[in-house]
Amino acid sequence: MKNIVVQKYGGSSVGTLDRIHAIADRLGRDARAGKKIVAVVSAMAGETDRLLALGRHFTPQPPARELDFLVSTGEQISAGLLAIALRSKGIPSLALLGHQVPIRTDRNFGEAQIEFVAPHRVKDRLNSGEVVVIAGFQGVTEEGEITTLGRGGSDLTAVALAVALEASVCRIFTDVPGVFTADPQICADARPIRKISYDEMLELASLGAKVLQSRSVQLAKRYQIPLQVLSSFDDGEGTWVQKEDRDMEKTVVSGITCDRKEGKISVRHLPDPVHAAEKLFSGLAEAQIVVDVIVQDRGSDGKTNITFTVPRESFDKAAAIAQKLAKSDSKTEILLQDRIAKISAVGLGMRSHSGVAAQMFQTLAKEGIDVAAVSTSDIKISCVIDDRYAELAVRALHDAFGLAKEVN
Amino acid sequence: MKNIVVQKYGGSSVGTLDRIHAIADRLGRDARAGKKIVAVVSAMAGETDRLLALGRHFTPQPPARELDFLVSTGEQISAGLLAIALRSKGIPSLALLGHQVPIRTDRNFGEAQIEFVAPHRVKDRLNSGEVVVIAGFQGVTEEGEITTLGRGGSDLTAVALAVALEASVCRIFTDVPGVFTADPQICADARPIRKISYDEMLELASLGAKVLQSRSVQLAKRYQIPLQVLSSFDDGEGTWVQKEDRDMEKTVVSGITCDRKEGKISVRHLPDPVHAAEKLFSGLAEAQIVVDVIVQDRGSDGKTNITFTVPRESFDKAAAIAQKLAKSDSKTEILLQDRIAKISAVGLGMRSHSGVAAQMFQTLAKEGIDVAAVSTSDIKISCVIDDRYAELAVRALHDAFGLAKEVN
Repeated sequence: MKNIVVQKYGGSSVGTLDRIHAIADRLGRDARAGKKIVAVVSAMAGETDRLLALGRHFTPQPPARELDFLVSTGEQISAGLLAIALRSKGIPSLALLGHQVPIRTDRNFGEAQIEFVAPHRVKDRLNSGEVVVIAGFQGVTEEGEITTLGRGGSDLTAVALAVALEASVCRIFTDVPGVFTADPQICADARPIRKISYDEMLELASLGAKVLQSRSVQLAKRYQIPLQVLSSFDDGEGTWVQKEDRDMEKTVVSGITCDRKEGKISVRHLPDPVHAAEKLFSGLAEAQIVVDVIVQDRGSDGKTNITFTVPRESFDKAAAIAQKLAKSDSKTEILLQDRIAKISAVGLGMRSHSGVAAQMFQTLAKEGIDVAAVSTSDIKISCVIDDRYAELAVRALHDAFGLAKEVN
Repeated sequence: MKNIVVQKYGGSSVGTLDRIHAIADRLGRDARAGKKIVAVVSAMAGETDRLLALGRHFTPQPPARELDFLVSTGEQISAGLLAIALRSKGIPSLALLGHQVPIRTDRNFGEAQIEFVAPHRVKDRLNSGEVVVIAGFQGVTEEGEITTLGRGGSDLTAVALAVALEASVCRIFTDVPGVFTADPQICADARPIRKISYDEMLELASLGAKVLQSRSVQLAKRYQIPLQVLSSFDDGEGTWVQKEDRDMEKTVVSGITCDRKEGKISVRHLPDPVHAAEKLFSGLAEAQIVVDVIVQDRGSDGKTNITFTVPRESFDKAAAIAQKLAKSDSKTEILLQDRIAKISAVGLGMRSHSGVAAQMFQTLAKEGIDVAAVSTSDIKISCVIDDRYAELAVRALHDAFGLAKEVN
């Protein structure tokens, strides 16, 4: 139904009773304007962490089924409270849990995958004029077990409902006014992007922009559900995440991201590169270390250098594996740098505009910043640099690509 | 199965993480001793009130369905935590909600009646060696709506499960070491009763003993499930509530109770007693006032006096109804006493031992306490007295009936 709108409210948006009051007022206005509204809520800010801490009091790794049973109460409480707030304002409404919709998932407790969302009950209640409030982050298995969908899972609940209900839009209300051209904490000029494609959003999310969960963007892309990311604290338009259009291609770079959670390992002067590289990466894979950027080049001596980055929590384990490999040849050197930053420029327009990489390298060079490794996709360029220059690099690139001014 | 034991833990018994630890240890010992254990838990002490206060922030009378949806999380949290604590000690266990058992109820949200408890899933898990932890106080309607069973509802959950599972006993763990011969706050000599019949327990519960919920005692009586009321804070035997036996009949009085939540109204010198009494009590019924003790007598002038007691919160309304009636005759007087105490002696042995009433009146008279009204059943005598003498009366009767010494 074209008239259905799914609105998701994150933890800070329902963080206090006053905030829940404000959201009920907003939903009331939308409902009176004739919209059919499904409101998906997260747990009140801090509540999920409080519940996890309770569960972990007894053991560092509580059984996953029981932990889901426990933490799913967070969303149940905020859903119940929002429905009560709506009813207290004379707005017909009811709250539903994952198993009451139902939102069916597999049995992968803690990180469950949604198998299907049955739309009938929600549609019936929307048709009878109610605002339907749904506890996010949770689902139910075929056997009636309560599951949770992993961090950011309420976004996924909202998009899955939008798909099942054929909603016209899924609005993600958060505590920031949209998806930014760069982290506003680093770059004072950063502003909310007006419009962005699903693929750009996926790149931004995987590169450290925390505003939207990747799985929910993938799902929205598959079913072409427009997402609107906006603040519940003001009336701005926020960011539209939607299918590609002509406007988007005109924008060479939509945003600059900065990921500071990796470390860099270089193995230099490998004598037998093919064999050595195979040995290195199969060793890392066995240790279940996720390798991100990989660069291989040949020095003037004809020997091979390999540089790669890994999440900082795997850094020591990865370094030990590389060092073990180096022992087999006395000339092989290991260079370790546990604090690096990966600065990325993302934009659909890169496909049609050449020279983006060149402009990126020039900008960094002008600031005296060495690029240790590069990785690219068709809409993204990432440069690995010394962590000390991360803020400087973000500001310089934000400026160089003209992101401070409104372009789309 | 003879081997199944249902154990219910109240709010103070699961009030802290340390208490939950201690209960898990206790359950572990019972499980290793070969018992099949179902543990029913209340919300952690204070949690239900906290959730009710959250719900009532928006409106003094939140919609009952949404309030049940909200407050049922309290038991879900303690059930999840207890199952995690058990598993952390290597004791196989799982937690179940009302809708997962299922415990089916009618749609009377806030005070739902249990229609049936399906025993199969719980039995399967018991047979596979798990301690089954069940969230008390909650059930589910045919349509999948979450309901709650009213205050003290976790007792009812426990007894209903004991019935469905044909358990050999239902243990109610609380913060006192059993059902007392009198309120130990009033009477220093009071001690836990060792053994008591269902009917005596029902009288005690309805007369102000708060340790067990009446509905759960009725259910236990109907299916002859022995109840053991005991403390989770020590290792005492507590009180057995069970079917009548010879021992019990030897005990004339099992306990003395004191209910201070009523007021007394006397209407004196009614000219037309039949008509007036009908008018009075139909007026009270229309106003939905529950009348407790009623005494009617005829004075030396041939006119009728009626004395009755009502809950203190209905006192002003009841007094107004009586005063309206008195206006029709100038000789009719109204006497109001908003603070009275109803002191009761309860005991199976009253049936076979005469003279209990006489001993009760003598004892009170010796202390200079006037008895304003009396009501009796075959195992109970209640006397309405001035509230000021309540403690004195309880102590005197406790002593007169020899309750301080262990008799059964």
